[in-house]
Amino acid sequence: MTQSKQREALYLLVKDKIVSLIQEKDLNQGDKLPTEASFCQLFNVSRTTVRIALQQLELEGKVYREQGRGTFVSKPKVQTLLTTTKKGFSEQMKDQGLLPKRQVLGLDVIPINSYVSKQLHIEEGKPVYKLVRIRYANSDPIQYETSYIPWEQAPGLTTSDCTGSLYELLKDKFQISIHHTIEAIEPILADEQISKLLQTKMGSPCLAVETIACTNNKQPFEYSYVIFRGDRSRFIIERNYE
Amino acid sequence: MTQSKQREALYLLVKDKIVSLIQEKDLNQGDKLPTEASFCQLFNVSRTTVRIALQQLELEGKVYREQGRGTFVSKPKVQTLLTTTKKGFSEQMKDQGLLPKRQVLGLDVIPINSYVSKQLHIEEGKPVYKLVRIRYANSDPIQYETSYIPWEQAPGLTTSDCTGSLYELLKDKFQISIHHTIEAIEPILADEQISKLLQTKMGSPCLAVETIACTNNKQPFEYSYVIFRGDRSRFIIERNYE
Repeated sequence: MTQSKQREALYLLVKDKIVSLIQEKDLNQGDKLPTEASFCQLFNVSRTTVRIALQQLELEGKVYREQGRGTFVSKPKVQTLLTTTKKGFSEQMKDQGLLPKRQVLGLDVIPINSYVSKQLHIEEGKPVYKLVRIRYANSDPIQYETSYIPWEQAPGLTTSDCTGSLYELLKDKFQISIHHTIEAIEPILADEQISKLLQTKMGSPCLAVETIACTNNKQPFEYSYVIFRGDRSRFIIERNYE
Repeated sequence: MTQSKQREALYLLVKDKIVSLIQEKDLNQGDKLPTEASFCQLFNVSRTTVRIALQQLELEGKVYREQGRGTFVSKPKVQTLLTTTKKGFSEQMKDQGLLPKRQVLGLDVIPINSYVSKQLHIEEGKPVYKLVRIRYANSDPIQYETSYIPWEQAPGLTTSDCTGSLYELLKDKFQISIHHTIEAIEPILADEQISKLLQTKMGSPCLAVETIACTNNKQPFEYSYVIFRGDRSRFIIERNYE
């Protein structure tokens, strides 16, 4: 085994050991971890190995570090069950003891661009709402959401309309009922804008979810692009086999 | 608007325009994009703005760059529909015109560690298979998969058993039938090991999927941790509302 290969295996082992230690000592969010030096002693490894392990854990959102103060256990991730239609995001947050909140950053009517026009099956240049929102769990920004809705389907939408559930609003005010959605999930890196809005580090991994929501005559009525902060988000899929 | 804010907005615009250009000119995988200089002229923006836009597109897996040769359109992503139980990964790949292949990197019997023992509801230290595989789409490594199976449930498993579907094998050879799975999706960054195995850049965003598969008496029989190369993977969720 080369030296770099050895270190590679070692840091993975150290990472697992730190995760086990958090579980076994039942450490909670904000609890301080032992120092790098004491991890070196405890696991009999170099400072470099401990650092790589802690860096990985930080990038995965399991711990966070504060300059000069040390390393701490992160808040638990917000879980979103993707295979239900019964409970929306807000209800699922409440089930986890978190207070959901939406903040409207902007609601504009703009000419639809080429890409979104294809997703919504409408002509390029037609007016669409561009609704930009941040969703919070307690005081933490978790999702950065951009929705496009054909203006003709919901004329007269106001900013204050958009602080609640969009699907409920469209149903109550415009008799548009959601029939099915198609979502695509991809991993991306937080750029300058995302990291500012979601209060996360530039270059940290995030989940991007593109959704097309359709009515029962298969007409798309919303296209959205939502970025979930990776260090605070976890998607769950449940499948039953026959 | 500050200058940095302007550049921020501009590179997003340039990114969209490059995506539209790929679509409109119907460019395919391996096709060369115009040079940075011609993008500057075409969109009337600085070289820095074009570079940031191209970097972002590269990180999202839409384009790739070759030193001294230029920027090219990436291969399409491998789509995995997460809300079906009818078609496995291999069948879904074939539907996309791709040849699926599995390579076994290792099959060992090891004492189960603390974390995995909790997932499989068995005592720490008991023997489990640790099966490590790479899954390919054509000749491209797409998934790096580590599975743990209690040794007692499937004694006598061999490496050559494991080149096909694990669920089919367990059913045919050991009468273990899958009843349901719970999967958790998180975004992570490729470290040195992952980037080597999946032939992707270090620090590129990936999808990590943790799965617990259970029999109908709710007994977990497999715990797996799979890393999907982000620049080649896209997960799809379909939901029907009532």
